[in-house]
Amino acid sequence: MNYHYPPSMTNLINYLMKLPGVGPKSAQRLAFFLLAAPEQDACGLGGAIVEARQKIRHCKICGNLSDEDTCMVCKDQTRDETILCVVEQPKDVVMLENTREFHGRYHVLHGAISPMEGIGPEQLTIDMLMKRLKEGGIQEVVMATNPSVEGDATVLYLSRLIKPLGIKVTRIAHGIPVGGDLEYADEATLSRAFWGRREL
Amino acid sequence: MNYHYPPSMTNLINYLMKLPGVGPKSAQRLAFFLLAAPEQDACGLGGAIVEARQKIRHCKICGNLSDEDTCMVCKDQTRDETILCVVEQPKDVVMLENTREFHGRYHVLHGAISPMEGIGPEQLTIDMLMKRLKEGGIQEVVMATNPSVEGDATVLYLSRLIKPLGIKVTRIAHGIPVGGDLEYADEATLSRAFWGRREL
Repeated sequence: MNYHYPPSMTNLINYLMKLPGVGPKSAQRLAFFLLAAPEQDACGLGGAIVEARQKIRHCKICGNLSDEDTCMVCKDQTRDETILCVVEQPKDVVMLENTREFHGRYHVLHGAISPMEGIGPEQLTIDMLMKRLKEGGIQEVVMATNPSVEGDATVLYLSRLIKPLGIKVTRIAHGIPVGGDLEYADEATLSRAFWGRREL
Repeated sequence: MNYHYPPSMTNLINYLMKLPGVGPKSAQRLAFFLLAAPEQDACGLGGAIVEARQKIRHCKICGNLSDEDTCMVCKDQTRDETILCVVEQPKDVVMLENTREFHGRYHVLHGAISPMEGIGPEQLTIDMLMKRLKEGGIQEVVMATNPSVEGDATVLYLSRLIKPLGIKVTRIAHGIPVGGDLEYADEATLSRAFWGRREL
């Protein structure tokens, strides 16, 4: 009979192979890395995965990731409560926070309307969003979904629901990226940049 | 103030960034994957890492990976005890076992002599190997180190130690890979293939 790795190594390799983009060879390489790494790094990673799964949930107000029932943004009383930014994913919140431009609250949809993937409005946190808006106090909703077919469809759907409430609906600008070059911009971006031109 | 991920998410991302070839963006992607994966997959991976670190050790006879003090190959009484195959790494044992050609025992050096990286004979399991050989019973030692400068140096060093014991020392053949093409073989491989020619 021929031998393979010990059972706990085979088990580890099988679990690593479930990660995206990790095949048998990469899984083996990662397993050997974890065996050779300092114990606190390897066991720390193992513990961090379990801890994250146990602790992280969606904020019951905005749907953002949180270790507690309400997230840090919703808890912060110094944030502007009159403006709400709607994003697709929790990572978009972090990207926007990094710009230090926005000081309002967020709402995370956890996706965008996509009939192709079978994602309708009911799979998103739109009910939660409408409930927040109907409670009053919010004067502007900034749509920061991705500039994709799905993101655009979601903006259209939401603006039809929100405008009758008398709330201003805006969308973040799409155009040539800072440091970009007209020569390398695609037509869709260029036409959006042209359409969104502003008077100086 | 601007917000990032909740602490347990940041912690997970930081640990994932210690993996080889994983930068901030990949770590974030992996973290989101682990949060969205079925609980038994994510926590299973976490547990498998900790379990592997706690259980896996080197076989006290041959240096192979094992969940117990002696590995499965060393425990198997049906294996040929007169022939020993010397490899650099535990993964080489698995590669050779997969060929189903070799039915003897192994010895894992855990590296190769490399003055450039400061690895001398004393860092390898050469003491263990010589002790095994001096106990008698072994008639042939097959060198299956990599065909690199370090692998070649290790073979030379070991054969000088082993030959005086009256034990036959052989080396696995290097040449054109099966399915390979002479046109694409490098000169070193081709010259080894020519040098290792056999009468038909």
